[in-house]
Amino acid sequence: MGPVLAVDMGGTKISVGIVDSSGTILAIETEPTCKNSPQATVGQALALANRLSGAKNTRALGLALPGVMDADRRVLVDSPSSGWKDVPFVALFEKAFGLPAAADNDAKACALAEWRFGAARGLADFFWMTVSTGVGGAFFANGKLARGARGMAGEIGHLLVRPGGRLCTCGNRGCLEAEAAGPSWADRAREIDPDWKADAAAIAGLARSGDTRALSIVEDVADALACGIAAVVNLLDPQAVFFGGGVAGAADLLFPRIQRGLEGKTLRSPAGPDFIRRSAFGHEAALAGAACLALEIAQRNDVAQRSYAFIPEV
Amino acid sequence: MGPVLAVDMGGTKISVGIVDSSGTILAIETEPTCKNSPQATVGQALALANRLSGAKNTRALGLALPGVMDADRRVLVDSPSSGWKDVPFVALFEKAFGLPAAADNDAKACALAEWRFGAARGLADFFWMTVSTGVGGAFFANGKLARGARGMAGEIGHLLVRPGGRLCTCGNRGCLEAEAAGPSWADRAREIDPDWKADAAAIAGLARSGDTRALSIVEDVADALACGIAAVVNLLDPQAVFFGGGVAGAADLLFPRIQRGLEGKTLRSPAGPDFIRRSAFGHEAALAGAACLALEIAQRNDVAQRSYAFIPEV
Repeated sequence: MGPVLAVDMGGTKISVGIVDSSGTILAIETEPTCKNSPQATVGQALALANRLSGAKNTRALGLALPGVMDADRRVLVDSPSSGWKDVPFVALFEKAFGLPAAADNDAKACALAEWRFGAARGLADFFWMTVSTGVGGAFFANGKLARGARGMAGEIGHLLVRPGGRLCTCGNRGCLEAEAAGPSWADRAREIDPDWKADAAAIAGLARSGDTRALSIVEDVADALACGIAAVVNLLDPQAVFFGGGVAGAADLLFPRIQRGLEGKTLRSPAGPDFIRRSAFGHEAALAGAACLALEIAQRNDVAQRSYAFIPEV
Repeated sequence: MGPVLAVDMGGTKISVGIVDSSGTILAIETEPTCKNSPQATVGQALALANRLSGAKNTRALGLALPGVMDADRRVLVDSPSSGWKDVPFVALFEKAFGLPAAADNDAKACALAEWRFGAARGLADFFWMTVSTGVGGAFFANGKLARGARGMAGEIGHLLVRPGGRLCTCGNRGCLEAEAAGPSWADRAREIDPDWKADAAAIAGLARSGDTRALSIVEDVADALACGIAAVVNLLDPQAVFFGGGVAGAADLLFPRIQRGLEGKTLRSPAGPDFIRRSAFGHEAALAGAACLALEIAQRNDVAQRSYAFIPEV
C-alpha cells in the first residue's frame, strides 16, 4: 500500500507529513499556526504539502484536530484553543486536496498511533495523555478506542484534581490542565518571583541542576499529574499510561515523582516502573495518528477495488 | 430457554433466586451472610436454594461476588469486605450444585443486568455505581463491559474525592467510599452529636422533614458523589449513570444535589435531569446480573446442542 498524507493541526503549530504504511514518517513540514480562519488553515496545510515532494502520490489524507469531533468525525464541533465551532474540516480538506479524508481529535489520534505502530501495540486497555499548552487524553478499553456519548471520552484535561485550585481557561478551578500544562509552570515561576520568566523546559533544566525553586514547581506539577493518573487507575485500570506533548520532555523528573504520588491514591498501585511510559513517536504522535486515519481509508478503498476485481464473470 | 439459578453474595446478605430468560425473578430467598468460610457460604447458598421449589429444574448457575475476579472469572482474587483471597468459587459452586457456573464482580453483574434487561438497554456507554455499605462501580464502553488490566475497571469506591478526607477501610483518606457509603452517614451523625445514632435511611427521613443537621449530611454526601461522578463524566463521557444499593433509597434527596454539583466540575455538564438514574432492579440488581451470567452459559450450551443436531448425516 502506498504512502498517505497526514496533517496535525496543533494549538501552536501545523505539521504536514508523508507517512508510509508501516507508520514511518518519510517527510515532514512544520510552521506556526496562522489562526485566522479554518479556510486559511486549510490553505496553509496545502502550501506545506506542496513543499513535500511525493505529496502528489499519496492516496488519502488524515487529520488530527484540536477539539471535540462529532460522531461521524467529519465536523470539528468545538475547539476551545482556536475558538472554532462546527467546522466541516474533512469536507474542506477533501475539496482542497482532492483526496478522501478522515479526521479525529488529536489525543485520540495519538492513542491510535501508539496502538497501531508504537509502544501500545498488543495492549487492550491503556490511557494516552498529552501534556503541552493544554492537556488532552484518550483511552482504549477492550482493544477499542473509547469515544463516549459526546466524543469526549478520555478528556482528562478538565478533570478536577485540586478543589479551589488554579483558574482554568474553561472557567473552572483546579482542572488538571490548569495545574499541569506548560503555561502553569511559567505562571508558578512568576508567582515565586515576578522577574523570573521561564517556560516549562527552562524550569525543568534548572530543576535538573538542583535549583530548589524549580524543583518545588516540578513537585507541584507531578502531584497534580499523580492525582489525575490515580483517577485513571481507579476508574479504568489500564495496563499502561502513555505520555506525550512538550511537558513529556521532563519525563525524567516527573515519572518517578508521579509513580510515588500514586501510592495512597489508588486501591492497588499499578505494578512496575514502566507503568507510565513516553510515547514512541515523541512530538510526531498526532501526525502518526492522522496517518493511521488515512491508512484506514486507503485500506478500505483497496478492499473495495479488490472485491470489484473478484466479481465472478457471468 | 428454561430458568436459571442466581446467587448474590453481598457484604451483609446472601440471596438465591430463580430467574427466567426474560430477566424476571420468579422466586427469591435471602439471609444475612455467615462470614465463616467460603465453604460455609456455599453450604448456606445450597440450603437457600433447597427452599426454592423449581431450583432442581434450573440449567446453570450465576454468581455475583463482592471483590475482584480474575481474568477468566473462576476465582475471587481479593474480597476486602470478607477478607477472602484466591477462592475458586465457581468450582466450589459447580461441585455443590451439579450445575455449570459462571461468576463476576457484583457491580459488573449489576451493569450487565441493567444493560441486558434494565434501564441501560441499547446504551453503548454508561456507568453503574453501587452505594451501599461500600461503593462499587462498573462501566460499558463501545457496548462492552470494561474489565481493565486487573479486572478493576470501574472501581470508583477508592477514587480520591477529598484530599485529606475521611479515613477509608483501604487505609487511604478521602476515597468516595469513605465519604459516601452508608457507614459514613452514621459516622457524621455521631460526630455532630455522640448520642445521635442513626443510619443513612433514618438520616434521609429526617432530611425530608427539613431537619437541618440531617440536610447538612445529605449535602456533604451529595458533594462527594458529585466529585466522583464528575470524574466519570470527564474521563468516560457516559450517556447515563445508574445508581443502585441502599443509599439509592435517598435518590430524591441526592440526585438533584449531585446534578447541581456537577456544574463547575466538568468541561461540559451532561444534559438532562435523567442523566443520573435509579437501577431498574432496585435491591435485586446483582441477583439479576448473576442470572445474566447463568443465561449466557445456558445459551452457549443450547447452541452447542443445536450445532450437534445439525451435523449432516453421512
